[in-house]
Amino acid sequence: MSEAFVMSIDAMGGDNAPDIVIQGLEHYLKTQGSDHDVHFIIHGDETQLAPLMAKAPLTTARSEIVHTELAIDMDTKPRHALRRGEGSSMWNTIDSVKEGSARVGVSAGNTGALMAISYRLLRTMIGVQRPAIAGLWPQPDGMCVVLDIGANVDCDASHLTEFAVMGEAYYRALFHKDKPSIGLLNVGTEELKGNATIKAAHERLNNSELGLNYVGFVEGNDISFGEVDVVVTDGFTGNIALKTAEGTAKLISKFFKESLQASIWSKFTAMLNYAGFKRLQKRLDPRRANGGVFLGLNGIIIKSHGGTDAVGFANAVAIGVELAESDFLAEVERTLNALHDEDDNMGFVA
Amino acid sequence: MSEAFVMSIDAMGGDNAPDIVIQGLEHYLKTQGSDHDVHFIIHGDETQLAPLMAKAPLTTARSEIVHTELAIDMDTKPRHALRRGEGSSMWNTIDSVKEGSARVGVSAGNTGALMAISYRLLRTMIGVQRPAIAGLWPQPDGMCVVLDIGANVDCDASHLTEFAVMGEAYYRALFHKDKPSIGLLNVGTEELKGNATIKAAHERLNNSELGLNYVGFVEGNDISFGEVDVVVTDGFTGNIALKTAEGTAKLISKFFKESLQASIWSKFTAMLNYAGFKRLQKRLDPRRANGGVFLGLNGIIIKSHGGTDAVGFANAVAIGVELAESDFLAEVERTLNALHDEDDNMGFVA
Repeated sequence: MSEAFVMSIDAMGGDNAPDIVIQGLEHYLKTQGSDHDVHFIIHGDETQLAPLMAKAPLTTARSEIVHTELAIDMDTKPRHALRRGEGSSMWNTIDSVKEGSARVGVSAGNTGALMAISYRLLRTMIGVQRPAIAGLWPQPDGMCVVLDIGANVDCDASHLTEFAVMGEAYYRALFHKDKPSIGLLNVGTEELKGNATIKAAHERLNNSELGLNYVGFVEGNDISFGEVDVVVTDGFTGNIALKTAEGTAKLISKFFKESLQASIWSKFTAMLNYAGFKRLQKRLDPRRANGGVFLGLNGIIIKSHGGTDAVGFANAVAIGVELAESDFLAEVERTLNALHDEDDNMGFVA
Repeated sequence: MSEAFVMSIDAMGGDNAPDIVIQGLEHYLKTQGSDHDVHFIIHGDETQLAPLMAKAPLTTARSEIVHTELAIDMDTKPRHALRRGEGSSMWNTIDSVKEGSARVGVSAGNTGALMAISYRLLRTMIGVQRPAIAGLWPQPDGMCVVLDIGANVDCDASHLTEFAVMGEAYYRALFHKDKPSIGLLNVGTEELKGNATIKAAHERLNNSELGLNYVGFVEGNDISFGEVDVVVTDGFTGNIALKTAEGTAKLISKFFKESLQASIWSKFTAMLNYAGFKRLQKRLDPRRANGGVFLGLNGIIIKSHGGTDAVGFANAVAIGVELAESDFLAEVERTLNALHDEDDNMGFVA
C-alpha cells in the first residue's frame, strides 16, 4: 500500500447528494481501497450523513465528519457563491486543501461556484495565468485528456501553451506514461488553417525546448481516435466539443435501443446476446470518464459530474488518488518555470 | 412534375470520381427523377465519362457533357486553384452557374478550392459580408442545419446574425417549415456565459424585428437532440463540433461492432436480428447528411463529401434540387436587406 494521505469531500454537492457521495466512497474503498492508504474529511450535514455512514463501514473507518448545515445549490451563481458561500460544505472542502489538512478535494457541486471558490482560496500557481478544467475522453484503447473544457472562454497563445504543460503532467500522473503526445485542436491539419491565436500557440509549442512531445494540429475526429494523449483547446471550443460528443453518443444509443426494441423478435435476439450488450454498455459507460480536474491552482480539486451515481463518484475519487500519489504539482511548477524562462529569452508576449 | 431546370456537375471532383458521380446521378434519377424535371451539364473528361454514361441511360437522356481534361486535385491549395484552375471541371461547374446556364452546381472536390473559386466567380450577395458553409446534422426525427461549419475561422456578431438569416431560409427551402427555430451555440444557456461576440449576436437576434424564430443559446448536446432547427456558430467551432461528432459516432460504431463479434454466439444472435441492425445502420448512415451548402453567394453551390459513394452523391444532388425549386436566393436577399435596414436604424456596427 502506498503512502497515507487525506482527501476532503464535499458531501452535499450534486443532484443526488449526500447519498451517492457516501455510497461512492464506500464503493471506491471496496474496490480499490486495499491498494491506497487514503483517508477522508467529509464536509456536510451530520444528521443527513449519520444514517448513510451507518451503512458504509469501510468509509466510517477511514473518515472524519466536519459538520456544516450550509450547502451551495446546483444553480447558485459564482458571484453569489463567493459572497455567501463561506462555511458551506463546498467552501470547507476547498479550505481543507488550502490549509494543508487534505491533499485533494472532490465535489459534485456546481462547476461555476466550485471554480470561483477554488480560485479565491487556492489562487493560481506561480507561472500560471489561468486555471483550466481538464476532462477525460474515451478512446478505442484507454482515454485522452482534453483541456480546457470550460474555465476560459477567451484564450491567447500563452494560455494554450500553459494548458499543454499542465495537461501533459496530468496525463502522466494518471496513466504513468513518460512522454504523452500533445495536439492542438484546429479546423485542419495544414499549417495554413486556423486563427491567429492557434497559429501563435503552434509556433510556440513547436519551438519550445521544454521537451514536450508536441505533434501539431489535430481535428475534432482525432479526439476519439487516439491520435494524441493530450488535446489542447480554449474553454469555449473544448466545452462545445465535449457536449457535442455527449449529445452524439446519446442519440446513437437511442437509435440503438430503438432498433433492438422495434419488434418482439429484436428484443428476443438482444436478450440472447445479453453478454455482448453488457460489454458494450460498459465501454460506453459515461461514468468511466467522470471527473474534471481543475489544473493550475495551488492544490488539486476534482469536479465530479453533478448527476453522477455512486460508481461515477468513485471514479472521480480514483482520479484524486492518482494525482495525490503523484508528483503532479511540483512537476507542473518546474515545467512552467522553464516555460517562462524560455518566454523571457524569446521575447514572447503573454 | 415541377418546373424544368439545369444543374451543373463537376464529374472529376472527389476521391472516387468520376465513377461515383455518374452512378450517383443515375441513382438520383432512378429513385427521385420522376418527380423533378432536372437536367445536367456534366463537366469532365469525355474519354473517362463515355463508358460510365453507357451504363447510365437515365442520366444520358437528361445530360450534356462539356469536355475538359483539367481537374483540381483533392490537395490543391485554394490559392493554387485560383491561379491555375481556370478551365478545370470544378471551375467550369461554377462558371455554368455564374453564366446562368445552370441554377445549381455540385462538386465532391476539395472544399478550400471549391469555396475559393465559387467566391471568385459568384461573389457574395448584396448584404452578405461572408459566405458560410451549412451542414445537415441527424436528430431523432429528421435533421437540423448547422452553420458555419468551416468557411470562416473568425466571426463577429454581424456575421453570426447573417448566418442566422441564411440558415433559416435554407432550412425552410429544404424542409418546408414556415418558421424554423434558431439557436446560437454557446457554452451555457445562462445569459452570463459566452464571449463578447456571442453576447452581441444574442442581443442582436433577440431585438430584431425580422420575425426570426430565435430561441436563444443552445449547447453542444442540444444539436443532436433537436432543440432547434438551425444552429448558428462560427466556422472554427462549427467545424470542430461536426468532426468531433463524426469521431464519436465512429468510435461507438466500432465498440458496437466489436461487441457483436466478440464471440460466435454474439455473431449468431446479431444475424438473427439482421432486420433490426439494417434499420439501425440506415439511421446512422452518414450519407443521409451528405452535402454542405455554400450560402451567401450569387448562386447555389453544393459540396458533397469527397469520400462519398453514389448514394451519398445522389443525396447531395437531392439537396441541390430542393434549393433550385425553392425561392431561396430571393428570400435571403429580401431578409438581409431588412436586416441591414435595421442595422442602420440601430447604429449597429458591422
